[in-house]
Amino acid sequence: MTGFAKDFPILEKEVYGKQLVYLDNAATTQKPNSVIDTISDFYKTDYSNIHRGVHYLSERSSERYEEARTKVSDFIGARNPDEVTFTAGTTDAINQVARSLEPSLRGNEVLVTGVEHHSNIVPWQMAGAKLRAIQMDEDCNLLLDSIDITKDTKLIAISHVSNVLGSVNDIKEITEIAKDHDVPVLVDAAQSIQHLPLDVKAIDCDFLVASGHKMYASTGVGVLYTNDRFSDLMPAKGGGGMVDKVSLEKTTYQEPPLRHEAGTPHIAGAISMGAAIDYMEKIGLGKIEKYESDVYSYARDRLLEMDNVTVYGNTDRMCGSISFNIDPVHHYDAGLIMDKMGVAVRTGHHCAQPLMESFAIEGTVRASFALYNTKEDVDRLVEGIEKVEMMYS
Amino acid sequence: MTGFAKDFPILEKEVYGKQLVYLDNAATTQKPNSVIDTISDFYKTDYSNIHRGVHYLSERSSERYEEARTKVSDFIGARNPDEVTFTAGTTDAINQVARSLEPSLRGNEVLVTGVEHHSNIVPWQMAGAKLRAIQMDEDCNLLLDSIDITKDTKLIAISHVSNVLGSVNDIKEITEIAKDHDVPVLVDAAQSIQHLPLDVKAIDCDFLVASGHKMYASTGVGVLYTNDRFSDLMPAKGGGGMVDKVSLEKTTYQEPPLRHEAGTPHIAGAISMGAAIDYMEKIGLGKIEKYESDVYSYARDRLLEMDNVTVYGNTDRMCGSISFNIDPVHHYDAGLIMDKMGVAVRTGHHCAQPLMESFAIEGTVRASFALYNTKEDVDRLVEGIEKVEMMYS
Repeated sequence: MTGFAKDFPILEKEVYGKQLVYLDNAATTQKPNSVIDTISDFYKTDYSNIHRGVHYLSERSSERYEEARTKVSDFIGARNPDEVTFTAGTTDAINQVARSLEPSLRGNEVLVTGVEHHSNIVPWQMAGAKLRAIQMDEDCNLLLDSIDITKDTKLIAISHVSNVLGSVNDIKEITEIAKDHDVPVLVDAAQSIQHLPLDVKAIDCDFLVASGHKMYASTGVGVLYTNDRFSDLMPAKGGGGMVDKVSLEKTTYQEPPLRHEAGTPHIAGAISMGAAIDYMEKIGLGKIEKYESDVYSYARDRLLEMDNVTVYGNTDRMCGSISFNIDPVHHYDAGLIMDKMGVAVRTGHHCAQPLMESFAIEGTVRASFALYNTKEDVDRLVEGIEKVEMMYS
Repeated sequence: MTGFAKDFPILEKEVYGKQLVYLDNAATTQKPNSVIDTISDFYKTDYSNIHRGVHYLSERSSERYEEARTKVSDFIGARNPDEVTFTAGTTDAINQVARSLEPSLRGNEVLVTGVEHHSNIVPWQMAGAKLRAIQMDEDCNLLLDSIDITKDTKLIAISHVSNVLGSVNDIKEITEIAKDHDVPVLVDAAQSIQHLPLDVKAIDCDFLVASGHKMYASTGVGVLYTNDRFSDLMPAKGGGGMVDKVSLEKTTYQEPPLRHEAGTPHIAGAISMGAAIDYMEKIGLGKIEKYESDVYSYARDRLLEMDNVTVYGNTDRMCGSISFNIDPVHHYDAGLIMDKMGVAVRTGHHCAQPLMESFAIEGTVRASFALYNTKEDVDRLVEGIEKVEMMYS
């Protein structure tokens, strides 16, 4: 193991007698020792429920939870920590926004792209909105000039980076167009927060959502950034501490972010997100981006030169995921064979059925990268593909 | 430390030079080593995202996640694991049910009690339902004969055990009455699942909700039991894997429980719930109930014999929590003084403002117990109260 992999205990693992090469990072990333130990130590030394507790452990837990909120806030460039809500994940965060905006969305329209994950499609449908996709060219570059905002368009909801293709969308250009029409923008950063420096002030979006488990932290935690322009947003869920005054007749709510955190939050998860941010910042996001870009480009180049391999999408800027198929092998069979070679990839529609439909395919093999992956991992991926080709030749 | 406390590393802690006595268990319980280690080990050896993965780690994680579901299912006596959905907690689970039942609840009525936690009040209000409370006597026994189900009553939502008083409600009698009127029953088991053997088949409820973090497991995870009578319940949240087929025009859903688990679930949290159940079952729920009942009765007896102490609620069956005030001391000040004695209690309205209003008080001091608490802990609590009395005499 080289580079950062030594910090991730699971990467020492052998699978079927082969050193594990983990290339399923768009599904979830592995956890460094510092994150795993933070969770254990928290439960062993400071754990309690937070807020309104008068006792020592409750104060300690509350402090650590709010420190984590501040770390997330600084990490994404929010104006202040009150703009940051901890959620159960990206999907939960999008559902919260959909629920809160439902009165304006119902019967109206949300503009998305053709590469969205289902979690940026279904919640809007459940809120009664119609969806329309921004057009893209055959390489999957968004055609921003074609954006057609009508009086029915109540939101633009767009992934920063595609979980399938790795295509990076130019959010800044989109928020500028949206602003001209006074339409809010939600950015799904689930596939970018771990790869690219983020600055919500510079992007000037209204909502941004991301998951802890895809950025080296615990499962079950995520983040919803809400621009303070939306500080009067109604809460999506009811619960214990998010209220001001409750009677059986009527309830009034706390200010944000508390009003958006119904129920005991995932305290240990939030703190693990803080630890993951510490880990990434110690390396430096700029350095991570540059290192990953190098490995990612190497992987694309190697795959593109393979005769029987079709790589999907080819946009101006890319990171994270590469999707491909190996002619004439079904993606599922290819994945199984690579698994036996110790190479973990994901296969299927990657929760992006509309995109699969636009390619007229059922699914792809997806290799997706994190900061611990190396060019040697790419070579092992290529060996895996060659093995698949050999078995089907 | 005696008994089970040795399994909980945080209980070795000293606070302000005093051995910690943790009596804030209704807010959250501490975690045994076996649960903490299960989480760490999972991230170090088997971690991946679940479902639809073709690779080794994904299979291992999926197996362990589904094993945890089966453990929960067996623990609460469900007919089959498909009746068990993992959620982000009790509050999240109630919000899901409220959202799914909203079409039938809106403009109609939910029957609750006067002791409910806000999380069993606010979600129903958000779904557009009116709330009415079942009457109770001055000791807080529910007056079941007075239950008045009308044609507008679309749900009975009731806590099994009060988080404030420790009163145990007779759910079985309530479900029998409800069944005569064909009204479904939701049981909030957040304060009972860790204290009493539960059997959803015997209770014959339609929904039951509980939290992991109050039963010795991770934060950020909970459970929603849905009787298979409601197997066609519409999902409350949209996401990646809960769908069958997605297009921008239309989406169809998986069968339960998958349709109710939008987004990557709290995989490590679910597995920690399995570990917590293993821990409790090794002791035996019957033994836990008997042991805790002994300590709880001792605590009530000691508090009831104190002249300046008012204990709230006195029902036929009680467990878990005891709420009291010390005349003439404000509950908050009492809690602060006890904290300095190393005794962690909670003070305030305990997210049950309607109950506080019925007592015409602002809040109480609450001591709440778990399986690691001892009669010596109760003696330390009494010493704390005596210290408070002394300082105000």
